Amino acid sequence: MSASETILGTDTIYEGRTVTLKVHQVRLEDGRESNREIVEHRGAVAIVPLTADGEVLMVRQFRLAAGGELLEIPAGTLDPGESPRQTAEREIEEEVGRRAGSLEELGAFYVSPGFCTEMIHAYLATDLTESAQNLDEDEVVEVVALPFEEALARCLDGRIQDAKTITGLLLAAERIRKASP
Amino acid sequence: MSASETILGTDTIYEGRTVTLKVHQVRLEDGRESNREIVEHRGAVAIVPLTADGEVLMVRQFRLAAGGELLEIPAGTLDPGESPRQTAEREIEEEVGRRAGSLEELGAFYVSPGFCTEMIHAYLATDLTESAQNLDEDEVVEVVALPFEEALARCLDGRIQDAKTITGLLLAAERIRKASP
Repeated sequence: MSASETILGTDTIYEGRTVTLKVHQVRLEDGRESNREIVEHRGAVAIVPLTADGEVLMVRQFRLAAGGELLEIPAGTLDPGESPRQTAEREIEEEVGRRAGSLEELGAFYVSPGFCTEMIHAYLATDLTESAQNLDEDEVVEVVALPFEEALARCLDGRIQDAKTITGLLLAAERIRKASP
Repeated sequence: MSASETILGTDTIYEGRTVTLKVHQVRLEDGRESNREIVEHRGAVAIVPLTADGEVLMVRQFRLAAGGELLEIPAGTLDPGESPRQTAEREIEEEVGRRAGSLEELGAFYVSPGFCTEMIHAYLATDLTESAQNLDEDEVVEVVALPFEEALARCLDGRIQDAKTITGLLLAAERIRKASP
């Protein structure tokens, strides 16, 4: 089986700074018709910055969509024309004030492919050197350094509630286990 | 620091079947003003159905937002008034035709808290018994049974590209490692 859907028509509902919302009329593989509400997003990166001391540098920030503060790994949206690796280099400096000597791709994943085009590229950043934090205009974040094992434990016990953070940290843990079994 | 944002006003752009889009004017903690585009979503569940033979039951389906087929764990949106556990019981039956004797919560996470309210509750389902697959009207999915270790390997090598699937499988792996170290 190779399923697909044919777009019969599209209404563009909204084009904003972060998202574009479209509603597509589609024909399913079996001939039936349906609507798909699709949120378009340019894509983003998330970075696991691991210090020589075995700490991961995270950010705590208020998230209106979550109604409270969340502890996350540094992340950010791709600027137009930017590659994911360039975004990662920029965001780690902007959000936690570090430059990465090594930036290793951990994976790439759709955050919610049922309705959203956003793909996040995750990186493990090591060989860190100090730089200056330089946040976006509408960002207010606090940098939090946690031992890597403590951050992992918080993914497993529910204290970390952000998908890219859990995915990034667990993928990094698998990578590290493979490197030194 | 306990950051927050005050909503000064809200435009509701669209209210659909899957998502509602609102644009909030907010005052940041430091007094500056900004806009937040927020996609509201009822929330969802994702299930790792693990058979007695050590296979995980997955679904392959076309995702318009991804422009192709993705291999995912079974998942679905909360119906109004439904608890996440009830949704999980319903979705595992609808999508892969199994009932779960045991349903253990693995965690809950926001898929993209920068702009989207969707939270996914992930479960490990075991003690499975056969039932009848019963898809939603607009779903066309193929059930794929993979050895658990093979599914994990595909999370690490990039062949699985869905965040809830990677998160669910890696959380299940950690749970299983803890149970039988």
